[in-house]
Amino acid sequence: MKLTAPLYTEDFMIQAHPDVSPAKWHLAHTTWFFEQFILKPYDDNYEEFSKFSNGLYNSYYETQGKPFPKQYRGLISRPTTEDTMEYRRHVEEAMEHFLKEGPWNEEIAELMETGLQHEQQHQELLVTDTKFNFSMNPLNPAYLENESFEEQGETSKLEWHAYEDELTTIGTDNLHFSFDNERPEHKFYLHAFSIASRPVTNEEYIRFIEDGGYEDPELWLSEGWGIVQEQDWKAPLYWQKQGGIWFYFTMNGLKEVRLHEPIAHISYYEADAYARWAGARLPTEQEWEYAFRGAEADGTFLESESYHPRPLQSFPNAYGDVWEWTRSPYSPYPGNRPPEGAMGEYNAKFMSNQMVLRGGSCATPKSHIRSTYRNFFPPEKRWQFSGLRLAKDGVQK
Amino acid sequence: MKLTAPLYTEDFMIQAHPDVSPAKWHLAHTTWFFEQFILKPYDDNYEEFSKFSNGLYNSYYETQGKPFPKQYRGLISRPTTEDTMEYRRHVEEAMEHFLKEGPWNEEIAELMETGLQHEQQHQELLVTDTKFNFSMNPLNPAYLENESFEEQGETSKLEWHAYEDELTTIGTDNLHFSFDNERPEHKFYLHAFSIASRPVTNEEYIRFIEDGGYEDPELWLSEGWGIVQEQDWKAPLYWQKQGGIWFYFTMNGLKEVRLHEPIAHISYYEADAYARWAGARLPTEQEWEYAFRGAEADGTFLESESYHPRPLQSFPNAYGDVWEWTRSPYSPYPGNRPPEGAMGEYNAKFMSNQMVLRGGSCATPKSHIRSTYRNFFPPEKRWQFSGLRLAKDGVQK
Amino acid sequence: MKLTAPLYTEDFMIQAHPDVSPAKWHLAHTTWFFEQFILKPYDDNYEEFSKFSNGLYNSYYETQGKPFPKQYRGLISRPTTEDTMEYRRHVEEAMEHFLKEGPWNEEIAELMETGLQHEQQHQELLVTDTKFNFSMNPLNPAYLENESFEEQGETSKLEWHAYEDELTTIGTDNLHFSFDNERPEHKFYLHAFSIASRPVTNEEYIRFIEDGGYEDPELWLSEGWGIVQEQDWKAPLYWQKQGGIWFYFTMNGLKEVRLHEPIAHISYYEADAYARWAGARLPTEQEWEYAFRGAEADGTFLESESYHPRPLQSFPNAYGDVWEWTRSPYSPYPGNRPPEGAMGEYNAKFMSNQMVLRGGSCATPKSHIRSTYRNFFPPEKRWQFSGLRLAKDGVQK
Amino acid sequence: MKLTAPLYTEDFMIQAHPDVSPAKWHLAHTTWFFEQFILKPYDDNYEEFSKFSNGLYNSYYETQGKPFPKQYRGLISRPTTEDTMEYRRHVEEAMEHFLKEGPWNEEIAELMETGLQHEQQHQELLVTDTKFNFSMNPLNPAYLENESFEEQGETSKLEWHAYEDELTTIGTDNLHFSFDNERPEHKFYLHAFSIASRPVTNEEYIRFIEDGGYEDPELWLSEGWGIVQEQDWKAPLYWQKQGGIWFYFTMNGLKEVRLHEPIAHISYYEADAYARWAGARLPTEQEWEYAFRGAEADGTFLESESYHPRPLQSFPNAYGDVWEWTRSPYSPYPGNRPPEGAMGEYNAKFMSNQMVLRGGSCATPKSHIRSTYRNFFPPEKRWQFSGLRLAKDGVQK
Repeated sequence: MKLTAPLYTEDFMIQAHPDVSPAKWHLAHTTWFFEQFILKPYDDNYEEFSKFSNGLYNSYYETQGKPFPKQYRGLISRPTTEDTMEYRRHVEEAMEHFLKEGPWNEEIAELMETGLQHEQQHQELLVTDTKFNFSMNPLNPAYLENESFEEQGETSKLEWHAYEDELTTIGTDNLHFSFDNERPEHKFYLHAFSIASRPVTNEEYIRFIEDGGYEDPELWLSEGWGIVQEQDWKAPLYWQKQGGIWFYFTMNGLKEVRLHEPIAHISYYEADAYARWAGARLPTEQEWEYAFRGAEADGTFLESESYHPRPLQSFPNAYGDVWEWTRSPYSPYPGNRPPEGAMGEYNAKFMSNQMVLRGGSCATPKSHIRSTYRNFFPPEKRWQFSGLRLAKDGVQK
Repeated sequence: MKLTAPLYTEDFMIQAHPDVSPAKWHLAHTTWFFEQFILKPYDDNYEEFSKFSNGLYNSYYETQGKPFPKQYRGLISRPTTEDTMEYRRHVEEAMEHFLKEGPWNEEIAELMETGLQHEQQHQELLVTDTKFNFSMNPLNPAYLENESFEEQGETSKLEWHAYEDELTTIGTDNLHFSFDNERPEHKFYLHAFSIASRPVTNEEYIRFIEDGGYEDPELWLSEGWGIVQEQDWKAPLYWQKQGGIWFYFTMNGLKEVRLHEPIAHISYYEADAYARWAGARLPTEQEWEYAFRGAEADGTFLESESYHPRPLQSFPNAYGDVWEWTRSPYSPYPGNRPPEGAMGEYNAKFMSNQMVLRGGSCATPKSHIRSTYRNFFPPEKRWQFSGLRLAKDGVQK
Repeated sequence: MKLTAPLYTEDFMIQAHPDVSPAKWHLAHTTWFFEQFILKPYDDNYEEFSKFSNGLYNSYYETQGKPFPKQYRGLISRPTTEDTMEYRRHVEEAMEHFLKEGPWNEEIAELMETGLQHEQQHQELLVTDTKFNFSMNPLNPAYLENESFEEQGETSKLEWHAYEDELTTIGTDNLHFSFDNERPEHKFYLHAFSIASRPVTNEEYIRFIEDGGYEDPELWLSEGWGIVQEQDWKAPLYWQKQGGIWFYFTMNGLKEVRLHEPIAHISYYEADAYARWAGARLPTEQEWEYAFRGAEADGTFLESESYHPRPLQSFPNAYGDVWEWTRSPYSPYPGNRPPEGAMGEYNAKFMSNQMVLRGGSCATPKSHIRSTYRNFFPPEKRWQFSGLRLAKDGVQK
Repeated sequence: MKLTAPLYTEDFMIQAHPDVSPAKWHLAHTTWFFEQFILKPYDDNYEEFSKFSNGLYNSYYETQGKPFPKQYRGLISRPTTEDTMEYRRHVEEAMEHFLKEGPWNEEIAELMETGLQHEQQHQELLVTDTKFNFSMNPLNPAYLENESFEEQGETSKLEWHAYEDELTTIGTDNLHFSFDNERPEHKFYLHAFSIASRPVTNEEYIRFIEDGGYEDPELWLSEGWGIVQEQDWKAPLYWQKQGGIWFYFTMNGLKEVRLHEPIAHISYYEADAYARWAGARLPTEQEWEYAFRGAEADGTFLESESYHPRPLQSFPNAYGDVWEWTRSPYSPYPGNRPPEGAMGEYNAKFMSNQMVLRGGSCATPKSHIRSTYRNFFPPEKRWQFSGLRLAKDGVQK
């Protein structure tokens, strides 16, 4: 697997927080997913790979037995990484064989599609989790060694794109290229709004910091202000100031902050506070979807292998690079109906205390993203490549 | 103050959780509110009451100085309850004088209205907090002593009321009888739905418990299931089983559960799990508002002085008694604009990780409630009189 | 009770930490002690006082039923303070009657003595706990109102008193005036040592602070240094610096630190670090006992009603005012045998992770103290009047 | 290094608790010790090994720069295990060269001796920590694979060995084969006591469990009983009951408990409670030292490569196999004086809240142990091979 090529065996093991997983776990879990949901139920000839027939790699599917506590994933040294690679080969071969010879029906096809999408989600997690895990090492190890890290161009001027009131539709009914949380397509009354042509940049965010943004309670939601004080937040995750200059930890190690790229690794609370400071607000997820419907993203995605955002250009293609916090809590769409069984656990059970993000990041496979895609995180988390785009009520000039 | 008449001086002091406050604090804080926001800025003749000129009774208004940490409110024995009563009289007299003699304008009128609404909210909190504080005492002291506690009638049969798709409006523009979070009135596309004629009863909820509702992870949101396990929830707050019979702590002490009244003291997670178990869902706040628009509540409110729910009868007047969890996270309405200054801290800054409740409870003053009223709590909290009403997609028979 | 005279009803309720108790609890618990261990087992005519027949006031006697969790003592508003006073009168009368009429034997006499000693210990706790509870109030309320708070004299010059090697005895066999932890008198080989003529003063301790004592890890035990960093200790408990001057919270409210009195409210870790900084060490409890054997304390005790230390004068009577940390962990003496039953829980079960203190403080009744008396606290606690006296190996000039 | 031969690269990384360290860390830290305390100060020709010149492997020497937080040791994937091995070779070669060519004096000789003793201590820790780290894996991986695990013989009958009162000496003045905490040899008055001929066995301990030892608060120290309830202890660490049979996790994986070997992996609180249940007590460290003075241990040590206790035989050689908890808190001996500088941090700063253990375990190198050796752990810890031996006051038959 290309993504794991730069990793030493030791790198596969580390887990710096219950929310992140070791690389070895990601490899085993995505393999388990295909085995558990396709091979075991549908392939009569499938023989389990013994070292992995133990439920250790079930993430959170309560229907599939009691999940192993996620905070202990980094303590499982055996089976080893090599064992895990063998397990992957075993399951890959079985899948190939099954795809050729096995029975086939719509249910399996949908599971297959879900398995591939799931694999892509864990590719992204492998990047974001590795970044977080590496960041705990005071030696600032680089995942991408010996690569240059220069500014990738200028920021385009921020423009406002305005939309009038409209009774429109949101979501999709496309079964095979959407998750259940994107469905169904449904009528939605959208109020006039304006949205920025590009995300907020590091340069702009530094202005917020230097204007005392982290010291002014009036800019913050109450819970956000509580966290700022309790955890002594003074800048985005991974940032530190040395000799008056801002540095951040990147997949290339510790680097001076590039000013023109989109801000990343901020919480919902920081995004919301920045927007208030800027006299604007975050867009709702419906506004976002409406504005970017049909546009193909020209941002930086996983395929670039840079794992770092770059300056974004022309609207409405200017998304990707960073997930964009919306002001929409993660809730079911009207008429939404999660699937029965384990697949019903995929999305629906996380619909509390999470905010929707849109757009995809430099760690997201490009083929994984679409304008109806709903990502979601707790508002206080920062280890994703999460940034923001401004919006306003009504029609701005 | 009538509500505090049954309290001994000792009762005024207790604070069993950072989320609840001692009765003495409620008295001082509501007084401080009038003094801080009306008398001090607008009444040139006002003289401060010295023992209380210290900022100890600012709840969370960061614009008004650093609030005293709420978890320590129960540790402030001085000024005493009697001092606090004197402080109230001092401010009441000053307010009376100011209302007669003082300048008057729309801004002051609105602050006055907010002060009164705020007073009502703290009357409700005084009831719910006292119940929680008393519940920590294993002797189960009764706030209402020597009062009978008998079932108040039968439950009406549950019926479904159905509504077709409609582009309607939600919220209000009424400035003086609404909070900023209810504004503005705005267009909203509502999808066909059905709503139950009355809330879920204790009898129905006991069936959920006895059917293993608290042991089945498939019924629960992921965070809810985490809390069920961590805190070993097996029933609503205040409930315990003795000799096969369910008892609950009430304002009359420990009593056998009355079957026909609405279930209360459940979290959002429990409400959501119950609805899933029942093959239904919670209503959105818009559905709720639409269904009850214009109806006058005939439920039990604070004025009844019973501080306990009773069976509810005819739809659409059958609300009150218990706050009803909706599936809507607490978010700003389109076009909403919080006031400038301290009043802007009243509602808007709590818009994260909270769910909307509608309807009012037996601890809410009846004159305080209206169909557009948006209450909000974190989904895991249970010390409010919080219950649920079922809803379904589309038109149910 | 004289000690509670300055307290308002509200003051009786507050509990700022699980380690301290509300005044009301102390009153009820000491009453319960006589009732539980004398009246109920030995007085056939005794009739329980109904409101208190509930086990709520058992502190930690596992033999007497499951103790009520101590962190919740401040949440019990009922029975009220007045009820508690009535309970005390009830038990006092019963005790008086029992002492006149009841059976009498050595066992009862010993329990009676223990009950009185226990009462004295809680008099001390009532003072130290009230001080801590009041200290949480930012208004700095004074327990002793309107009293002057002036320096009480000069510090005597520190002298060293030296003792040669000796095979001596430690402890006592006096049954009625000792606790089981002081017994038996046993042979002990004492190595030559020197001990200071008086405790360390505030003035001396300030020198330690200003010399960077709280910033130098080499002065501290490992656990102590951990706490200094974690809790950001920079001075004794209750101390704060305002405008370059040290103040401390006292039973007279917030006052400027008096330089010549013994330092108080420091942990074992601070005492130990100070001693190391001073090129000395803490005495062992055997050294302390040997040096003060037979001397009558002329320090300040509870009876002074000042509840604050004063400068100490002539050795060897110069003890009292502050408990003196020794370097001896709290362990059983050779041949020690705790009593059977509940009285065996009085001392023995606390023999882990505690250090011995000697001498008595300004909150200790003078008749309660003696040179063999062993007090004990966890090394990190500071809410007692705890200070230190220096010692050294061998014979110092 | 022989001890690490059975470990996969992944095994070197895991750290299941802040108190235990990953194997890779032990290798780097012991190497750092020689480099930091001998090569860097005394060898002018020494060239640092660049990847390790970062202070990451300082354990707790505050004199040597701020130690890296120990709870994060398992998150350092780079430098890798192979890098660490290279670092060891680099330092070993430099040490060899220095021993031949370098200057030599008593100070260096003593540091050299300390370095070797330190290496031995970390050999023991590598075993105990690996056992704990492996135990978190529900697959129960075996460090010793494919080895039989059979009972190693019978238990000898328990006999009491009695000693009369004596003024004796304890400790040692031997500079090169003792730690500073064993010094000086000093007079000590020992009271008559009796000590058991061998440690308590698993069979005996099971009787304690089955007699309700873990349910009876009267057997426990107060803090111990708190932990029993809070952590729901029902048996020693690593024990579990399956189908009525006791199993434990061992270096050979999960095995049925062997009855005749000494009990291991119990806390001080469990040892103390067992002794009370058995009508005895734990010995003091002086009693232990006196009884075993001059005896050569015939127990099982690290060199056996079994890493598991075996039944012990003839007194007074019957020690080793398990560390034996004494009732002595860890304190300085009279006249003890820790060395200046970093070596003074080796032992002295841990003298609070720890109990002394004596005797050595199956993970201790035999050449490391002696009858004056003082080991110490916090009373609640269980991951060491810690057991107990009974003692009694006076002369038992």
